[in-house]
Amino acid sequence: MVALLGTGVVPAETPILRADDLGALRGDGIFETMHVREGVPWLLAEHLDRMGRSAERLALPLPPRADLLELVGQACAAWPADREGALRLVCTRGPEDGGPVTVYATVAAVAEATRRARAAGVAVRTATLGVPADVRHSAPWLLGGTKTLSYAVNMASQRWAQSVGADDVLWLSVEGYALEAPTSTLVWRDGGALCTVPAEPTGILIGTTGHWLLDHADELGLASRERMVTPDELTAVDGVWLLSSVRGVAAVRTLDGAATRTHEKETARLRDLLGYPVISR
Amino acid sequence: MVALLGTGVVPAETPILRADDLGALRGDGIFETMHVREGVPWLLAEHLDRMGRSAERLALPLPPRADLLELVGQACAAWPADREGALRLVCTRGPEDGGPVTVYATVAAVAEATRRARAAGVAVRTATLGVPADVRHSAPWLLGGTKTLSYAVNMASQRWAQSVGADDVLWLSVEGYALEAPTSTLVWRDGGALCTVPAEPTGILIGTTGHWLLDHADELGLASRERMVTPDELTAVDGVWLLSSVRGVAAVRTLDGAATRTHEKETARLRDLLGYPVISR
Repeated sequence: MVALLGTGVVPAETPILRADDLGALRGDGIFETMHVREGVPWLLAEHLDRMGRSAERLALPLPPRADLLELVGQACAAWPADREGALRLVCTRGPEDGGPVTVYATVAAVAEATRRARAAGVAVRTATLGVPADVRHSAPWLLGGTKTLSYAVNMASQRWAQSVGADDVLWLSVEGYALEAPTSTLVWRDGGALCTVPAEPTGILIGTTGHWLLDHADELGLASRERMVTPDELTAVDGVWLLSSVRGVAAVRTLDGAATRTHEKETARLRDLLGYPVISR
Repeated sequence: MVALLGTGVVPAETPILRADDLGALRGDGIFETMHVREGVPWLLAEHLDRMGRSAERLALPLPPRADLLELVGQACAAWPADREGALRLVCTRGPEDGGPVTVYATVAAVAEATRRARAAGVAVRTATLGVPADVRHSAPWLLGGTKTLSYAVNMASQRWAQSVGADDVLWLSVEGYALEAPTSTLVWRDGGALCTVPAEPTGILIGTTGHWLLDHADELGLASRERMVTPDELTAVDGVWLLSSVRGVAAVRTLDGAATRTHEKETARLRDLLGYPVISR
């Protein structure tokens, strides 16, 4: 399903972007991905809030929220309510000669590899992101914390992981701190607390799904905490996961080949709280 | 002008990219920009060589060179030969469900601001790129030296420069070495040598126009050299320029507000050798 702002639903294979759209020419735009369950995008308000922050940092005139809600509604209405889906909401800077912005939504099936990772977990390799942990905080032009369309390095990092026999990457700062994964947020359990990496000082993305989980940690009898962590520490803690909107929770089975202490029961407990379907294998 | 591989010339406002084209969704693709003079793209072979290297690093199946040459020919044939133009050649990974790649070429007029910078030079501010100078050399997933469509940080850096009253940015490594500009290559004259930053160890892009200039430095009675340099050194050398395919040579008038020792005559000498038209103001 594809819905285009100002036009409505169009067949998925219809070309909608001009050759000089800055989204395509420069990766100059923003997006959000959401999990569609029972016909509705989960955490829609939180994702639109984040999209608003991304738009501000890119000086991008995002249309009013009511227009975005209508667009998302059009895309979801055309998707079968009994089937989980992956919604993308995209806003590019539009044609190079001066806009307006191009805004569209797509809904697609959840990929088989995504469902498999949700059920079976992932083997993860660490890889440097090439930045000191604190450099993006004071350099807004580096777009820390901004979900832009410029994901070539994210995709290349995942291709590299697959080329060395892994499923995903955990990016490290040059000092060796764990930051985030190319399309997901690092969460771990250390004794009685669920933990994640602080976003503001490091310039990583604030993970919508990961932060929802930490905000509801008390329902699992756990506290929540933000702190820096190293890969060595992660193999010693009580469980490690990658959180993202469509995959939900993926257990980190191994980190650079070393088994983590992540138990299946614990992963199921998180997945149930988050409301992602359990896939039988 | 827009020409699409497999279709030919289409009106510029025709949508040609699907909503799920990975060029738009992920900035997952590559491009080259060239200066069209007398109806022909200058340094076409060199740009296609670089595009081939970018494609390899992105594991992107770039079509055969003959097809690219035909496409470029179609786009240029539709452009008036007596008018300089800016050619873009783009290859994205294509639709998300598995390609084929989307390949197109556009020719547009040289923007007024570009012509002005060519004639009058630019005020440049330094800004960190957030990376140590040597980190990308051994981390291929960071796509050093690869001209991808993921230019959001490049564009944000230039917007930041404009927000502080400058025209362009010179990116620095975290140690304070000058690297490159978001869309151009740093070149300076130090006594009898034209110099630029070494690309291979730093992961900057090999500038096609800049390297052509250094390869022809002997025609100006100069040697050529690659070395690391700091902003302080640049204000003391005998001239500083930003080289790029459409703007050609832009004199760096000031760096962080400090005047450089770049003489107009020297800039004109470089511009004439490179064959860019002098614009009367």
